[in-house]
Amino acid sequence: MNIHIINGPNLNLLGVRQPEIYGHETLGDIEKKMRQIFEQKNVALHFFQSNSEGAIIDALHAARYAHNADAVVINPGAYTHYSIAIRDAVAAIQIPVIEVHISNIHAREPFREHSVVAAACRGRIEGLGWNGYRLAVEYLLDALQPNN
Amino acid sequence: MNIHIINGPNLNLLGVRQPEIYGHETLGDIEKKMRQIFEQKNVALHFFQSNSEGAIIDALHAARYAHNADAVVINPGAYTHYSIAIRDAVAAIQIPVIEVHISNIHAREPFREHSVVAAACRGRIEGLGWNGYRLAVEYLLDALQPNN
Amino acid sequence: MNIHIINGPNLNLLGVRQPEIYGHETLGDIEKKMRQIFEQKNVALHFFQSNSEGAIIDALHAARYAHNADAVVINPGAYTHYSIAIRDAVAAIQIPVIEVHISNIHAREPFREHSVVAAACRGRIEGLGWNGYRLAVEYLLDALQPNN
Amino acid sequence: MNIHIINGPNLNLLGVRQPEIYGHETLGDIEKKMRQIFEQKNVALHFFQSNSEGAIIDALHAARYAHNADAVVINPGAYTHYSIAIRDAVAAIQIPVIEVHISNIHAREPFREHSVVAAACRGRIEGLGWNGYRLAVEYLLDALQPNN
Amino acid sequence: MNIHIINGPNLNLLGVRQPEIYGHETLGDIEKKMRQIFEQKNVALHFFQSNSEGAIIDALHAARYAHNADAVVINPGAYTHYSIAIRDAVAAIQIPVIEVHISNIHAREPFREHSVVAAACRGRIEGLGWNGYRLAVEYLLDALQPNN
Amino acid sequence: MNIHIINGPNLNLLGVRQPEIYGHETLGDIEKKMRQIFEQKNVALHFFQSNSEGAIIDALHAARYAHNADAVVINPGAYTHYSIAIRDAVAAIQIPVIEVHISNIHAREPFREHSVVAAACRGRIEGLGWNGYRLAVEYLLDALQPNN
Amino acid sequence: MNIHIINGPNLNLLGVRQPEIYGHETLGDIEKKMRQIFEQKNVALHFFQSNSEGAIIDALHAARYAHNADAVVINPGAYTHYSIAIRDAVAAIQIPVIEVHISNIHAREPFREHSVVAAACRGRIEGLGWNGYRLAVEYLLDALQPNN
Amino acid sequence: MNIHIINGPNLNLLGVRQPEIYGHETLGDIEKKMRQIFEQKNVALHFFQSNSEGAIIDALHAARYAHNADAVVINPGAYTHYSIAIRDAVAAIQIPVIEVHISNIHAREPFREHSVVAAACRGRIEGLGWNGYRLAVEYLLDALQPNN
Amino acid sequence: MNIHIINGPNLNLLGVRQPEIYGHETLGDIEKKMRQIFEQKNVALHFFQSNSEGAIIDALHAARYAHNADAVVINPGAYTHYSIAIRDAVAAIQIPVIEVHISNIHAREPFREHSVVAAACRGRIEGLGWNGYRLAVEYLLDALQPNN
Amino acid sequence: MNIHIINGPNLNLLGVRQPEIYGHETLGDIEKKMRQIFEQKNVALHFFQSNSEGAIIDALHAARYAHNADAVVINPGAYTHYSIAIRDAVAAIQIPVIEVHISNIHAREPFREHSVVAAACRGRIEGLGWNGYRLAVEYLLDALQPNN
Amino acid sequence: MNIHIINGPNLNLLGVRQPEIYGHETLGDIEKKMRQIFEQKNVALHFFQSNSEGAIIDALHAARYAHNADAVVINPGAYTHYSIAIRDAVAAIQIPVIEVHISNIHAREPFREHSVVAAACRGRIEGLGWNGYRLAVEYLLDALQPNN
Amino acid sequence: MNIHIINGPNLNLLGVRQPEIYGHETLGDIEKKMRQIFEQKNVALHFFQSNSEGAIIDALHAARYAHNADAVVINPGAYTHYSIAIRDAVAAIQIPVIEVHISNIHAREPFREHSVVAAACRGRIEGLGWNGYRLAVEYLLDALQPNN
Repeated sequence: MNIHIINGPNLNLLGVRQPEIYGHETLGDIEKKMRQIFEQKNVALHFFQSNSEGAIIDALHAARYAHNADAVVINPGAYTHYSIAIRDAVAAIQIPVIEVHISNIHAREPFREHSVVAAACRGRIEGLGWNGYRLAVEYLLDALQPNN
Repeated sequence: MNIHIINGPNLNLLGVRQPEIYGHETLGDIEKKMRQIFEQKNVALHFFQSNSEGAIIDALHAARYAHNADAVVINPGAYTHYSIAIRDAVAAIQIPVIEVHISNIHAREPFREHSVVAAACRGRIEGLGWNGYRLAVEYLLDALQPNN
Repeated sequence: MNIHIINGPNLNLLGVRQPEIYGHETLGDIEKKMRQIFEQKNVALHFFQSNSEGAIIDALHAARYAHNADAVVINPGAYTHYSIAIRDAVAAIQIPVIEVHISNIHAREPFREHSVVAAACRGRIEGLGWNGYRLAVEYLLDALQPNN
Repeated sequence: MNIHIINGPNLNLLGVRQPEIYGHETLGDIEKKMRQIFEQKNVALHFFQSNSEGAIIDALHAARYAHNADAVVINPGAYTHYSIAIRDAVAAIQIPVIEVHISNIHAREPFREHSVVAAACRGRIEGLGWNGYRLAVEYLLDALQPNN
Repeated sequence: MNIHIINGPNLNLLGVRQPEIYGHETLGDIEKKMRQIFEQKNVALHFFQSNSEGAIIDALHAARYAHNADAVVINPGAYTHYSIAIRDAVAAIQIPVIEVHISNIHAREPFREHSVVAAACRGRIEGLGWNGYRLAVEYLLDALQPNN
Repeated sequence: MNIHIINGPNLNLLGVRQPEIYGHETLGDIEKKMRQIFEQKNVALHFFQSNSEGAIIDALHAARYAHNADAVVINPGAYTHYSIAIRDAVAAIQIPVIEVHISNIHAREPFREHSVVAAACRGRIEGLGWNGYRLAVEYLLDALQPNN
Repeated sequence: MNIHIINGPNLNLLGVRQPEIYGHETLGDIEKKMRQIFEQKNVALHFFQSNSEGAIIDALHAARYAHNADAVVINPGAYTHYSIAIRDAVAAIQIPVIEVHISNIHAREPFREHSVVAAACRGRIEGLGWNGYRLAVEYLLDALQPNN
Repeated sequence: MNIHIINGPNLNLLGVRQPEIYGHETLGDIEKKMRQIFEQKNVALHFFQSNSEGAIIDALHAARYAHNADAVVINPGAYTHYSIAIRDAVAAIQIPVIEVHISNIHAREPFREHSVVAAACRGRIEGLGWNGYRLAVEYLLDALQPNN
Repeated sequence: MNIHIINGPNLNLLGVRQPEIYGHETLGDIEKKMRQIFEQKNVALHFFQSNSEGAIIDALHAARYAHNADAVVINPGAYTHYSIAIRDAVAAIQIPVIEVHISNIHAREPFREHSVVAAACRGRIEGLGWNGYRLAVEYLLDALQPNN
Repeated sequence: MNIHIINGPNLNLLGVRQPEIYGHETLGDIEKKMRQIFEQKNVALHFFQSNSEGAIIDALHAARYAHNADAVVINPGAYTHYSIAIRDAVAAIQIPVIEVHISNIHAREPFREHSVVAAACRGRIEGLGWNGYRLAVEYLLDALQPNN
Repeated sequence: MNIHIINGPNLNLLGVRQPEIYGHETLGDIEKKMRQIFEQKNVALHFFQSNSEGAIIDALHAARYAHNADAVVINPGAYTHYSIAIRDAVAAIQIPVIEVHISNIHAREPFREHSVVAAACRGRIEGLGWNGYRLAVEYLLDALQPNN
Repeated sequence: MNIHIINGPNLNLLGVRQPEIYGHETLGDIEKKMRQIFEQKNVALHFFQSNSEGAIIDALHAARYAHNADAVVINPGAYTHYSIAIRDAVAAIQIPVIEVHISNIHAREPFREHSVVAAACRGRIEGLGWNGYRLAVEYLLDALQPNN
């Protein structure tokens, strides 16, 4: 199984920014842990991060049409709340997309409660830290490989 | 580990109501599958369902103060959108509570986008079917038993 | 034909509360008049009243799955305006449900104009006093027994 | 008893427009059925339809002041949602007016939930098809002829 | 000077409707009083009333382009609150238009506070009874005949 | 007859500020013209201006309780849009109060459309320049001295 | 091909009203130019203008049911923003309807941004002057006569 | 005098939950203090707590119709903000009801500022801790026993 | 103990204005009753009333910094709903402030439900008539003199 | 004439994504058809597509300042609804810009009704499929080459 | 150059109130520092503070018309958010006015984000502490004395 | 001291676009003036402009983590109003960021009043032209070099 994991704006600073809150794990650390867990399950993981809305849309398109991915796990960061363009890209590629947020965005500023992307995704995990990525892939393993 | 799984209004009809949409699995079937997965991991699961807001609040209180639960997984059903009383109960018991929804509530009527309960929970999983319950407990295993 | 008539919060005070406004007829009086009119038409009427949202949901479930009712007439009282849980129960039982209100709720406080339940019902009668119950059953007789 | 039945915009297309939804009965068919039911009960029915807001207001005035009607049954169609002028006309004639809608307008677009006319009417029936007109007149028979 | 006085929906019922509130003077009575006051001042008054939005727009157009009126006094009745079409007609004729309301519409339902017509008028008089018409013409005499 | 004319904030700058818009007449000029018109009609006029909300409330109280005024004409200036305290003072003194605005406030910024004071007044004149004061007193002459 | 072109309120003043803005072409001039362009393409054009909402609805009904038109081009003028009745008429006739506006209504007052009619049309052209009518018919020629 | 004191959801946790904030006094402790203060003043106090909206409505009905209470002191907890059903019950029993909140709900989340219950009560005390209950009863002693 | 009691706009008219509603007690009468009750309890009361927002802010500052008051009881009248400046003054003086309203402002116009001052106060009493002042001081006695 | 045609996010998937809805024509196919139609009319067309908001702004700037384009036809895709930055770029280049949408965005989700870009454009065509591009250029031919 | 520096409500408490937040500098200290900096640059500074909205308006008028000031620096404090009267005064005096806030009001309560005064000012500095006053005058020096 | 000055969308057109409004100074001219003023004060200035939201976020990250800047001055242009991603980047880098706008955005369209970026900045200067950049750096000199 081929799964693309796309991270949006400011997630490149994970582990560097406010480590007392977000922990000391960088996005690279999470990637390493994820590969360790899933490579023995025959899941090919492809990681991508960008601060650019357009590059994220390009990556969603490429996941489906260039790389033939089976599914996408996306953390759109702040774009979650206003990027209708990312929402349309998620809807356009017609493969399962799971939205992940590291923190519980409902416990932050009110404007973070609203998501324009979620409606186009299959599901959403928030507030479970880096486990969100792991559990999203666990779900996809179960949902896409029913006889796994 | 001792985890209470609380289901809210209309979830007693799972498997009976519109099986072409919600599938043929009843809440009892899910309970059975969950027990099979987690009993070998030394997780004691306690299931509760009620259509009554007050009974759900009672169950949240009891989980913490009567049964000494380590965490709660809750699917508040429609109460998600207006029960500030359940939100307050979640905040009051001060153990991790994970909110789960079987369907992607962001892809339904607009009034389902708003949650008054989520801000008091640690995290939230939606749209991943019965797997939502499973992954919530997986998370709790990892988060509460760091050396597991 | 088997029809359940479910009354919500504060309707137990009919005839006792402000009789100069609501009249001197109690819910019991209405039940008696309804039975007199419809028993000769082979309609079995089942009356239920509760101030509890959860009990009303239970009654809706029971009407369909325990008692095999053909239809429900419901006056959700104040729950009309916020009980998404009752709305979901109405949608779940998939038999015709008619919403009835004794007073014209559009002529009262603005917050009574909004109904979350109505969209899941087949239709709605408001402002016609106890006749609302009678006419709802008349409709069901015509709609469910086309050759009646 | 003398009752005017006023139908608003686009209701002249009943039976012609989308018969798979609205059925094959035209407004003329409904008028015929209504007359058959109520003429034996000594109810004089007067039917009027117009797509013009002004003509509907004129008809409301005429019902009371020119034709001495005892009551009006009105289906304001789309004017329900914005014609404060019709609302004022309903309030001005000070005879009972019952608002009727063939479909359940709460189950359609959100802007159809709001009624500016309803507050000035005595009551409202919606979603019960052509029966709405019949039941409105049944109510008026009971309410205006208490010894009937 | 040539002034057109246009009255909108339900104003034809003045004096007939709720005389304990609106008084016993009909629109005809007001017209008579107005003519007595202003004919000695060389003001030609033209009265028009309609319940139809389209007819009111036609009358506004005619005032300027057919009858060469110097100004218009308009009581748009309930159309005040939503008829953008009347607003556009007022703006189009480019002669002074004064909006008059017999009652104080700010002391009634909240939706009557909003006017879509007022912005296109030169000014507005409300709550001063039939005097509103008189004072509007007094103003026009002063404003349009500076040497009067 | 004894009438108090109260002007609110920034109206002391009339004639000085932007004379190309507001004209060259000062509040003093208007007072002089008003006295000339009404002193021959036995109307005692009392003029007051303040930029202070509290002073305007004091003046409203004094008009009724200290000076036994028959009516008040008030131009609350910008306080129109938010001074609930002035609204309450207008309601408290229980003599007729007419609200006047020199310009058409509906043709300016949207926040000027909303008035919190108007509902407590008997009526309102706007957009008719200094004539607004004159016509308000004309109305009071007619309304308070019916046999005048 | 048979196309009806329906113009709404105040469009009868085109060419007369503010010619420095709207130009000197009347609706009659536009009709003449349109006929010159399209009669050689075998398109029968039928022009209609009214300031009355009801008459516009009648004209929409007649286009389909009386005159068997293939499509309608409509400029609903100010009714665009609130006439749900016209929207319903557009939806009812089930032939392609193109909405046209001469000016760019998004560059005017905020309340003109909202359209209740557009959702029922096939498409919309705004801000392109009289060309809007021409291009709408060009589109219909291409869309309805694919082999043209 | 016979006064019922009704406490709503989560108030059963007083003294247990976050004692550093809410103090160590339980609802039982408050009851004891209240009885000590008021039993010497011949006030019979009846305490009731429930997490269930329906049970609170039942208790309000019973206070008046079963126990003949002279007044009710109610802390509706989170139901304050959405339970129109409790509001209706308060209005229905037509004895004085005082709403009490232990904390200053205006200093918490914005959604706690809105109360649907308060309008039906005689008055409201908030933010004064357990003293709120005491002062509410003090008021009732003064208001209901004017010669006390 | 030294307590300042500050009353805002229009409260100087208590007992004069609408005595059938507000009673015949003036602010002076309330002051006399309050002094009688509390002077025997060694509470020094200082009364102040003003219709001016600025003067009320000055009085709040003076209470703390000039007169060393232990607490303030304030009835901000209509300023409750919009005076952020008074709110800031309350927050600035950092002694307990209790907000009091004579009437139940939740049972009046909707705009009176919103308070900008309450969040900065310790608590609030409304709808309990002149007793509100008395109970506020009773509370302060208990809260500030725990061994009293 | 030199016209730039700029397409925004997800439009690169035309023909590939959901061909049953959007048809099998790719953006390349449309470009080819457009060139065939307009090259014989001496119109130089320049096509550009990007998923990046910044790149679209760059392209707008370049059209005017680098390539000296006479006009732009833009389909901003989802950026239509929130990109104030693109709106500002459209306004900055001060050549005619026509906004085109392939589908009728008023018939989709409510958030697609709002456009922040339209107010800065000269006009807008929506819902007419690929013809939108063609008609926009037809308009520009007529508007920019009056003697054409 | 003659510059008036006007400070609004509660700013008289600077240095006294919460010094851990606002610092120990009083308004007097700031005045002293400002005079030291600018007197050598030939700038005459006039400081004024009031808690009264009316007095601030008077001071704005006086700056222009009594003292012939070249510009005003104003910190309207909480009046920023609702004093349309101050906004009108700023607009009326037609000399440059710079709005200053010591703290970053966008980082505080949501109601502080809205300013009714800012639109009438030339510019605004917020969140830069006492430097805000200094930089505002620096700007005025540059803008009003271009050859300085 | 090392300060990065970041300019957002459309600011590259300064001096080219509408010079009658924005003046003839280009961003390059401003850079030159700024360098002249501050290089003698030992301030290293780094200028960056981009129309891309992602590139601006990258630049913010780089300022802190790659270039070790002491502070940032940012003019986010239109992104001010919706780029939560830029807000998050500002918050993430935890060095002082000052927001600058050349024009007074409160005096333009209403949607420009709302800023999502400001809350994460230390302060904000708007409407003071190119001086905004200068004064922001002046502030930073004072705030970051207290002994300067």
